[in-house]
Amino acid sequence: MKLIERLLQPRHEAYAHCDLFCGVYDPAQAKIEAMSCLKIAEKYQASDDEAFRSRCIGIKEERAELAKHHLMVLWADFFKPHHLEQFPGLHDLFWRALKAAGDAKKSMDPAASQALLDVIDEVAGGFWQTEESKATGVYPPA
Amino acid sequence: MKLIERLLQPRHEAYAHCDLFCGVYDPAQAKIEAMSCLKIAEKYQASDDEAFRSRCIGIKEERAELAKHHLMVLWADFFKPHHLEQFPGLHDLFWRALKAAGDAKKSMDPAASQALLDVIDEVAGGFWQTEESKATGVYPPA
Amino acid sequence: MKLIERLLQPRHEAYAHCDLFCGVYDPAQAKIEAMSCLKIAEKYQASDDEAFRSRCIGIKEERAELAKHHLMVLWADFFKPHHLEQFPGLHDLFWRALKAAGDAKKSMDPAASQALLDVIDEVAGGFWQTEESKATGVYPPA
Amino acid sequence: MKLIERLLQPRHEAYAHCDLFCGVYDPAQAKIEAMSCLKIAEKYQASDDEAFRSRCIGIKEERAELAKHHLMVLWADFFKPHHLEQFPGLHDLFWRALKAAGDAKKSMDPAASQALLDVIDEVAGGFWQTEESKATGVYPPA
Amino acid sequence: MKLIERLLQPRHEAYAHCDLFCGVYDPAQAKIEAMSCLKIAEKYQASDDEAFRSRCIGIKEERAELAKHHLMVLWADFFKPHHLEQFPGLHDLFWRALKAAGDAKKSMDPAASQALLDVIDEVAGGFWQTEESKATGVYPPA
Amino acid sequence: MKLIERLLQPRHEAYAHCDLFCGVYDPAQAKIEAMSCLKIAEKYQASDDEAFRSRCIGIKEERAELAKHHLMVLWADFFKPHHLEQFPGLHDLFWRALKAAGDAKKSMDPAASQALLDVIDEVAGGFWQTEESKATGVYPPA
Repeated sequence: MKLIERLLQPRHEAYAHCDLFCGVYDPAQAKIEAMSCLKIAEKYQASDDEAFRSRCIGIKEERAELAKHHLMVLWADFFKPHHLEQFPGLHDLFWRALKAAGDAKKSMDPAASQALLDVIDEVAGGFWQTEESKATGVYPPA
Repeated sequence: MKLIERLLQPRHEAYAHCDLFCGVYDPAQAKIEAMSCLKIAEKYQASDDEAFRSRCIGIKEERAELAKHHLMVLWADFFKPHHLEQFPGLHDLFWRALKAAGDAKKSMDPAASQALLDVIDEVAGGFWQTEESKATGVYPPA
Repeated sequence: MKLIERLLQPRHEAYAHCDLFCGVYDPAQAKIEAMSCLKIAEKYQASDDEAFRSRCIGIKEERAELAKHHLMVLWADFFKPHHLEQFPGLHDLFWRALKAAGDAKKSMDPAASQALLDVIDEVAGGFWQTEESKATGVYPPA
Repeated sequence: MKLIERLLQPRHEAYAHCDLFCGVYDPAQAKIEAMSCLKIAEKYQASDDEAFRSRCIGIKEERAELAKHHLMVLWADFFKPHHLEQFPGLHDLFWRALKAAGDAKKSMDPAASQALLDVIDEVAGGFWQTEESKATGVYPPA
Repeated sequence: MKLIERLLQPRHEAYAHCDLFCGVYDPAQAKIEAMSCLKIAEKYQASDDEAFRSRCIGIKEERAELAKHHLMVLWADFFKPHHLEQFPGLHDLFWRALKAAGDAKKSMDPAASQALLDVIDEVAGGFWQTEESKATGVYPPA
Repeated sequence: MKLIERLLQPRHEAYAHCDLFCGVYDPAQAKIEAMSCLKIAEKYQASDDEAFRSRCIGIKEERAELAKHHLMVLWADFFKPHHLEQFPGLHDLFWRALKAAGDAKKSMDPAASQALLDVIDEVAGGFWQTEESKATGVYPPA
């Protein structure tokens, strides 16, 4: 798994040159919500209790909405025009990510949540390649 | 920095024995909000623009409230009675953490936000020592 | 019922010495939400209408979350270190209260909501014994 | 003060005949928020700290909005057409209450928050005269 | 394109005399939410998928609540005492509108949502007759 | 009344082939929030009252965030892959719109809010050219 692998790689040396306007960015926020979606979908499939299943549907709805929100923040606030040269497919990547979050919201199939996780890993992969990510995030690239 | 050191340590071998009722827990959520508080307090101190400073105050208010919320979730939902033997000071730790979040909300002094970050690192340190944390979180102990 | 009995007792004479930093505290906020949980759970059990039952589950989810939030505010903001001498079991009481709110959220059994109400009454009992509670709340101890 | 006087009056004998569709109603919710507005306005006037004053403005904004919300719930959900005979001025009372909440939101003058408290007491006075209020609320008429 | 064309057409003679305190008002906000309620209720009736139906119930709940909120804003903030002469039935109209929003929230019958739409059209009809509406809203009367 | 008249006019030939999954879309939602931002920025510039100006900053923050949210919903939920052929610049348009919403949030200059309104009109122009928009929205193209 790439994310874990990255954590084991040698860390970049510096947090210097923080030029963020305001706020802290970290794809972990979207990923945590997507992981919740996946676990909820799995528990839904494993249960036949009416109230439990109904709660799963409602809570996953919120979690997927939060994943969407965190993804939008990354796209709209963190990434800047000069990143488009580095990532020509940036817009398409985020569109797919938001569509995947919508699918994870609609579907109780764990595969939909897994697909969201996969595309968030793609987003995170790009994020940590930026120069600016060194100055942000809880867990900078190891 | 302890959190980073931990990321570089050898990883636990297994994710087995997931017994969580529902949801995913990760102290990164509280930490990201606390890092926002710190950066906002620093930018507030460095600016003399009325509107910018007013926005700093309002946004830090929200971020500190989110940190409080994420801490409460960890204390009330993740930690279970059997953890009290492992962490006799658990309740006091979380009370200090919530008080620190309240202070970070009230004060524009970056030191208040830094104190919140420090106590969240204490919380995270305990969290990753639990058996259950292996089955959750985006960035399990490296 | 203790809460009602207290309302009939002779009132304390004074509202003096308000030393609150900001805000007003009252365990009634948590209690009103817990009473909603109880009524919703009872109505859920008495109904066999799919849509009504699904709404009960979703609305109770919100109400129990609000109860949790109000309890956290009391614990983190109202109670101060010097209260620990007066109430050595304060932390444990609030932990039980938050766990009870979690149970009331998960279960459609009215007994879970009743248990939440009972522990909130314990909280309220302590709250109204504090010196500071005289300066706050809509319905100070009668 | 009428509300307190009422608490000292002999209590109605019964909680019977609960015919509420769902939920629990209590004017205490609006009143607690209005009391917060009043205290915040007073503290604002007594302070000359920029950040504290800015926080006062923002927090009062939220509290007054919550008071508005709770008032709307009482008007739209609790009161039923048959109450119009009992309270011919019901609509005008709530319109004045919502306008007062708007004024308490806009103004840092404690008098605006006090005016909101006064009209909420009028609302509460009517509420507790209804037959239905006996089956709801945390603190039924004493 | 018609929408743009209309925006470019000569405007009604005046946006003058704008006496709004702050904000922009438009009954379209309530109407859009009510239209969502209607479509959701229709889709609910046409589906027999458990998860889809449960999502419909939860999402309609939110949409109807938003319609209620937007209606309250119009009544409490936009309409002023002098409008009561122009619309003697103003209060009753809004009470019916809020009750209809409550019914649209409770019922999965599309007729309940349609009834909400109808009363919002009544509200919009009155709104656009006011002098003040010329200075607000996205789509002033064509 | 024109609004009602327009609603009663013969409709475009078809609402047929509605393939929306759930919900109703209308760029009016984003536009109303952007208009609020503009008016608030203007009032801010015209006032020298500390509390009023602070409220302007806080309320515009919320309104711009809502504009962002509504724009994201249009991009992520309404627009489908087949629209990319019709609007090759779709992604760039929405990125500019979200960036403009961010600028309108940060700046008290009315020009920033006007720029947001302009790009939302671009979005609306595209929206109403789609086949699917005929089946949605409160005010379909007249």
